[in-house]
Amino acid sequence: MKLATIRLGDHRTAAVRVDGDQLVEVGRADVGAVLAAPGGLAAAAAADGPRHPLAGADLAPVVPRPGKVVCVGLNYQNHIKEMGRDLPEYPTLFSKFADTLIGARDAIRRPVETEQFDWEAELAVVIGRQVRRADEEQAVAAIAGFTVLNDITCRDWQFRTREWLQGKNWDSTTPIGPFLVTADETGPRPALDVRCEVDGRVMQSDNTGDLLFDPVHLVRYVSTMVRLNPGDVIATGTPGGVGHARRPPVFLKGGELVVTEIEALGRLENRVVPEGV
Amino acid sequence: MKLATIRLGDHRTAAVRVDGDQLVEVGRADVGAVLAAPGGLAAAAAADGPRHPLAGADLAPVVPRPGKVVCVGLNYQNHIKEMGRDLPEYPTLFSKFADTLIGARDAIRRPVETEQFDWEAELAVVIGRQVRRADEEQAVAAIAGFTVLNDITCRDWQFRTREWLQGKNWDSTTPIGPFLVTADETGPRPALDVRCEVDGRVMQSDNTGDLLFDPVHLVRYVSTMVRLNPGDVIATGTPGGVGHARRPPVFLKGGELVVTEIEALGRLENRVVPEGV
Repeated sequence: MKLATIRLGDHRTAAVRVDGDQLVEVGRADVGAVLAAPGGLAAAAAADGPRHPLAGADLAPVVPRPGKVVCVGLNYQNHIKEMGRDLPEYPTLFSKFADTLIGARDAIRRPVETEQFDWEAELAVVIGRQVRRADEEQAVAAIAGFTVLNDITCRDWQFRTREWLQGKNWDSTTPIGPFLVTADETGPRPALDVRCEVDGRVMQSDNTGDLLFDPVHLVRYVSTMVRLNPGDVIATGTPGGVGHARRPPVFLKGGELVVTEIEALGRLENRVVPEGV
Repeated sequence: MKLATIRLGDHRTAAVRVDGDQLVEVGRADVGAVLAAPGGLAAAAAADGPRHPLAGADLAPVVPRPGKVVCVGLNYQNHIKEMGRDLPEYPTLFSKFADTLIGARDAIRRPVETEQFDWEAELAVVIGRQVRRADEEQAVAAIAGFTVLNDITCRDWQFRTREWLQGKNWDSTTPIGPFLVTADETGPRPALDVRCEVDGRVMQSDNTGDLLFDPVHLVRYVSTMVRLNPGDVIATGTPGGVGHARRPPVFLKGGELVVTEIEALGRLENRVVPEGV
């Protein structure tokens, strides 16, 4: 099953199920509310409601207000190598605030304060049930499914201090969507081609099967420290090919179309728009 | 004005105003809801409702579910020096998830997974209105007031990787409260004695006037990158005297009473209780 959150106008949104080229409202305000409701996914699979054409739908962030967006750094071996680091024993974790999130077709607002605006295509795990100190089986059961995220980053701010947060948390810069694809379609450790194109040029191309710490491992690791709740997101890290690591470096200036795609999950298409102050 | 959030049982909470030794319900579920409502602070100042004795009240985290808890590392000069670092040009930022927060008298649950459980007394800013790219005046106006926080940390996890997040985000470990003291009582850059005691031994003692990056500066800095919303929290960093930096190091084993106090703001009293798995 594929679910999305669409905007209906007047700040209203609706969770929808993708039925071919149609979107069917499932009676909840967004996919986060579907996941938070006991039996919400089963109810969404069976629900009927108003229909909208998929083409031209105004897609919101698939989970508009996750309680957590946990991000993983350095998780594809070739990206670790391009950043000049050794293979790590533990996942490196940081986080994004929900105010960074935008929809699958929204403009990425490029801040005037950065000169090094970069892309990071990522597989994102969406949590479907509360879990703490998950064992293998509980971790698998806690994964509602997967979506696509681009962890757009201001490299100059990322490296201002020793913590990455301030490079990673610019308002309305992080597309997530278009769909939540439930784990029954992908398995808990999907091996899918992941790709980022900028103006048609392939910048990143890898497979999510190459993750050093896979989705089940990450759910177990993060839930060791803190409960994970329905709607929480874990962005699993990005493969090689970011602009910062290119010689010469390449950064987003404004006007570019960034396409972020994962096989079987869908495609983000976001135009970079320079932001005024 | 002092506001708090108290637990009423059955998972219900209420925002209350402190009137001497009484707590007066102000008609909102918690202090976050007071701040989110237009004119919420003025309404809380004028409200009348059911009363409870302050003594023995069951205090929830003063803002139970902040959208952001932005934390600052390395912000008191003497703590920067004890950690062996130079004075920074920019604030170092990381974040905590809301699931880490506990009330002013709650037990701090010591995870079995850490051997280096440490304290960090901090002044916390509570945001009262939405702001982005705040100038000086807007930053001052965005500060609803201040509270006390202890950024309890698992040092071994903090230093597992190059990002601090995983040392800082253990479930139900971070006391915040007891009150929101509004900025009309403190000014926007309060110079107040801050102290942490463990079983009556003074471990940290400093003054919030020593902050390298003061509350107004931090609101401006963080809001450069992302909107701040009512109820968001900025924990401003901790002074010298953490257990990790002592010779020999001192860590919390379980059973200790941690008292975190800031002059004019109030006092957290939290017992460290070892957690089973």
